[in-house]
Amino acid sequence: MLSERLINTLRQTVEEELRLAVDQVVDRNLSDLRGMINYHMGWEGENAGSEATGKRIRPLLVLLVTAASGSDWHKALPAAVAVELVHNFSLIHDDIQDNSPLRRGRPTVWKKWGIPQAINTGDAMLSLAHLVLFQLEKTASKEITLQAARLLQDTCLKLTEGQHLDIAYQDRSDLSIEDYWPMVDKKTAALLSTCTGMGAIVAGADENRQEAYQRFGHLLGLAYQTLDDLLGIWGDTEVTGKSADSDLFTGKKSLPILFGLNQRGVFAIRWVQGGIKTDEVPALARQLELEGAKTFIQDTAARLTQQALEALEKAHPQGEAGDVLTSLTFTLLKRQA
Amino acid sequence: MLSERLINTLRQTVEEELRLAVDQVVDRNLSDLRGMINYHMGWEGENAGSEATGKRIRPLLVLLVTAASGSDWHKALPAAVAVELVHNFSLIHDDIQDNSPLRRGRPTVWKKWGIPQAINTGDAMLSLAHLVLFQLEKTASKEITLQAARLLQDTCLKLTEGQHLDIAYQDRSDLSIEDYWPMVDKKTAALLSTCTGMGAIVAGADENRQEAYQRFGHLLGLAYQTLDDLLGIWGDTEVTGKSADSDLFTGKKSLPILFGLNQRGVFAIRWVQGGIKTDEVPALARQLELEGAKTFIQDTAARLTQQALEALEKAHPQGEAGDVLTSLTFTLLKRQA
Repeated sequence: MLSERLINTLRQTVEEELRLAVDQVVDRNLSDLRGMINYHMGWEGENAGSEATGKRIRPLLVLLVTAASGSDWHKALPAAVAVELVHNFSLIHDDIQDNSPLRRGRPTVWKKWGIPQAINTGDAMLSLAHLVLFQLEKTASKEITLQAARLLQDTCLKLTEGQHLDIAYQDRSDLSIEDYWPMVDKKTAALLSTCTGMGAIVAGADENRQEAYQRFGHLLGLAYQTLDDLLGIWGDTEVTGKSADSDLFTGKKSLPILFGLNQRGVFAIRWVQGGIKTDEVPALARQLELEGAKTFIQDTAARLTQQALEALEKAHPQGEAGDVLTSLTFTLLKRQA
Repeated sequence: MLSERLINTLRQTVEEELRLAVDQVVDRNLSDLRGMINYHMGWEGENAGSEATGKRIRPLLVLLVTAASGSDWHKALPAAVAVELVHNFSLIHDDIQDNSPLRRGRPTVWKKWGIPQAINTGDAMLSLAHLVLFQLEKTASKEITLQAARLLQDTCLKLTEGQHLDIAYQDRSDLSIEDYWPMVDKKTAALLSTCTGMGAIVAGADENRQEAYQRFGHLLGLAYQTLDDLLGIWGDTEVTGKSADSDLFTGKKSLPILFGLNQRGVFAIRWVQGGIKTDEVPALARQLELEGAKTFIQDTAARLTQQALEALEKAHPQGEAGDVLTSLTFTLLKRQA
């Protein structure tokens, strides 16, 4: 109960700070640009509200780690806002790159305003993110501000490296499971690792704890993505909010599919032929499960979760925030499969 | 003669540092991503070479201002590299947004590798730019590094604000000349102002000189864009390297066109009807000239150039670099119209 109150307080504060950032930094005369950002963030337009904003996991991780490192989480608000804006920048560009018409059940920015404005709105959010991060200087030293700024920028480069692989993989049929990890490492785990790492940096935690927190975030990210890939094939549409079987259409090289290709069995033979139709999808998903993909992914996710919790323990998280980090890890990694 | 030697030295050093940045910072295993960057920068692929790299005006301005402020220009190399990468990031995204198949006579990145990879390559170059800027810490204080990093990031946000207006203007027929300046201010002048400003910041120039240099860059940017708009209608294709009359097709709201619309004369009547054909373009360009657009733009460019030179004088530029700044201004603003 207490934990829930803490999470709600953090979430509400982050939401207010996110809105302030857009209000204060983006030119007041450009109401259309601000409208596009506000729409994407889930604050304006059709079906705006908590369903549309997403879970704000990344800023929560920043603030919880700062608190669990024995510092005041308010100090880390610029970092929390920045990582969420970076995440949302990447979603806007991803949606164009994946040709996705919907995000959290609402039309994507490119679908509403066209590709040129969507590219640009993503670019604006990315700069906004880094600008907000510099506000750390008000609560931390120049040294810490520069360290955090460099880390976030380095992570943004990694995001693009991961995205490069993700796009390139779509046209390749020669991939193995070994190709999966470098992509997910950069595309998903890098930012989560930076969230937990920045929380520790702002708190002034020693290097050992900084590293342990970064490792925790990294493993959490890998586990999270592994599970996301599982839901992308065997998830319940009602629960995940997207067409559960879509990964069997899009050519996305998710972990179950790479596992299936490696088996060189019935699934692989059908998959490489291409042109999979809707009515084939349920049978193909069952075939992939029969060949051991689902068990493999579940085992992998369980192992990564275990490793994440071990890393978290090594960081010696303190107090209520520390407990919440542990329970949040369990919650995130027990989404309904 | 001496000046030319200095410019050549700076240009060559910038080019080497740009290549080093891509080599050292972008993941070595991602040769395709590096290839896309290297192609866009003019170093690889068909027609690679000095024609393909562009003039590198922005880094030259940074280094010349640092030298003209009495400091060693080598100190400003990270800033010089960063501004050129920011400029090239914006070109890659602009080319997608404008649907341009060619840049400096070569296929654009999106034309060669598709929109998804082109968006991503632009994103990668933007992060690379800011990462390189942080290397200022090796030659300058943390304070100066943070000031320069914040300025560049602020400018990147302005670039997207200007780009937002540029895209939005394409669908509007109710614009006047007053709408032009806020767009060009953010889209072109902001980055040039930041180039000259950063050169002064890195040199440790006092605030008055920093401001004078920023104002010089700003006015130079406005004059440059004004002239670019003139060339976009009355330029010689051979000289400008693009279809000279294209602004009369694309719906781009350049200064001559906004001037023409404001006249509400023969040009405006034809323009708002839309669907202008190739064989109409020469006559329409002449009509626009008859209505006074060309003279107006020339007068505007001359006035802005004069103001830029006055701002430069107030910055008290020193030595050979100072002379080169003056002569470079004349050269830039006397491109063949």
